[in-house]
Amino acid sequence: MYDRPPRDSRINPWQQTTPAAEAPAFDRRAQRQREVRIFGVAACAAVADDRFEAIRKVYVNRARAKSFGDLLARLAASRVGYNLIEDADLERLTASQHHEGIALDIQRKAQPSLATLKVAWQSAPRAVALALVGVGNPHNVGAILRSAVHFGASAVLMQRAHAVNLSGAVYRVAEGAAERIAVSTFDDIGELRIADMPLLATTTSGERSLFSDPLPPKAIVLIGAEGPGLPADVAALAQARLTIPGTGRVDSLNVAQAATLVLAEWWRSGSRRP
Amino acid sequence: MYDRPPRDSRINPWQQTTPAAEAPAFDRRAQRQREVRIFGVAACAAVADDRFEAIRKVYVNRARAKSFGDLLARLAASRVGYNLIEDADLERLTASQHHEGIALDIQRKAQPSLATLKVAWQSAPRAVALALVGVGNPHNVGAILRSAVHFGASAVLMQRAHAVNLSGAVYRVAEGAAERIAVSTFDDIGELRIADMPLLATTTSGERSLFSDPLPPKAIVLIGAEGPGLPADVAALAQARLTIPGTGRVDSLNVAQAATLVLAEWWRSGSRRP
Repeated sequence: MYDRPPRDSRINPWQQTTPAAEAPAFDRRAQRQREVRIFGVAACAAVADDRFEAIRKVYVNRARAKSFGDLLARLAASRVGYNLIEDADLERLTASQHHEGIALDIQRKAQPSLATLKVAWQSAPRAVALALVGVGNPHNVGAILRSAVHFGASAVLMQRAHAVNLSGAVYRVAEGAAERIAVSTFDDIGELRIADMPLLATTTSGERSLFSDPLPPKAIVLIGAEGPGLPADVAALAQARLTIPGTGRVDSLNVAQAATLVLAEWWRSGSRRP
Repeated sequence: MYDRPPRDSRINPWQQTTPAAEAPAFDRRAQRQREVRIFGVAACAAVADDRFEAIRKVYVNRARAKSFGDLLARLAASRVGYNLIEDADLERLTASQHHEGIALDIQRKAQPSLATLKVAWQSAPRAVALALVGVGNPHNVGAILRSAVHFGASAVLMQRAHAVNLSGAVYRVAEGAAERIAVSTFDDIGELRIADMPLLATTTSGERSLFSDPLPPKAIVLIGAEGPGLPADVAALAQARLTIPGTGRVDSLNVAQAATLVLAEWWRSGSRRP
């Protein structure tokens, strides 16, 4: 029966990819920042495909182990052990009922800085990034990441003061998208004034309909939290304020739906151009 | 200290709008079908605005009672009592941490049958309905209802075998939209063949891009569950199969995002016509 990982987990036999000699002095907090426990089949499969070497520990539901046979065989071949456990243990380890029978402890992916992204955008013919201001719900952030990857956005930027940790819940909802896009932080909206990339705000009272004109090939799109929306002084900094038209019979769309509509609009604006 | 409602709750003093004389013999199961416990500020405010008379019981967080002052005053004027309780009680009563300090027991809204909707659609110049096939996640259903109301859809139809109960969780995520659209059921896809309303399927391998042509003014849009998507034999019954273009770097969009994009497309197709 599996229980919490032992305090000396850095030298436990399951974790043969990190030789004990390389392990730094144990520091649970630093390790938590370097690693994240993800769960859900799509999220785990994407990391196994893209960054197999980042997998540190594996927890699989004993009864469902067969359905993860390929991954487990690959782990065995690479000498990464795995823990066959019960659903109740997975629930406790992931603090979720939505683990779908699998969880991985993985090393976090390094993220580019905003400065690095800016350099890449300079030479790109097309690029869109979402800048989230106060969007704090992990489910919304996960859903936004998924749509951002679907429509080929370059990055999701989060204001550092309200940045959501890329947690297991975010990974699960992103369904494999969490690591397929850059996720970076900014401190001040001023940092988002970038040459050739107009700053667009999405608000419920913008002067322009999202559907009225094609979006520019390069843009930074400001997305505010549900309820308060974007602060007025932030929206005022944008070159244009876009509103998603509708009946007005609900206060607003969900923030992830709104972000998805803007990204779809950017995608189709590009495919409409010659 | 508040606890579970007493078994004889139909004659408890909080519930002065239902005179004991009118109350049928107590039947908890029948009552459950007639009533639903909703929570979340937007969901409760919408019902108080639209169907105040449907409110049977009210539970409000004691510390946050002031912020619901208008509602509580209106309840008092209508002789509907309310329970001032603690967050822990609200969590237990709603089985959720997302109650936002308020829950209502309300009488369910009567829903039109598909036959009734068909009659209304015959004379409507424009009408779109979503038909959900196997979409079982209450959060997705709630998000779909919210977008459907935003974009003026006529109904959300659910296949009876997989129909999601309009629960408190659905109401909360719908943010006030749950009762602002008809929600009806159907048994067989064949019932959705309606004159002048082409049946459109959304799939990841459709022959037509959602963005390639305007949508027709009247349509029934089939939406499948995530993962399996629409069964091939169901998609084959549709007049057209629509795909949402993208990078292909995620398996699919979230089902609520996909539904929102189709609804937005229907909205803009209408506003483009003279």
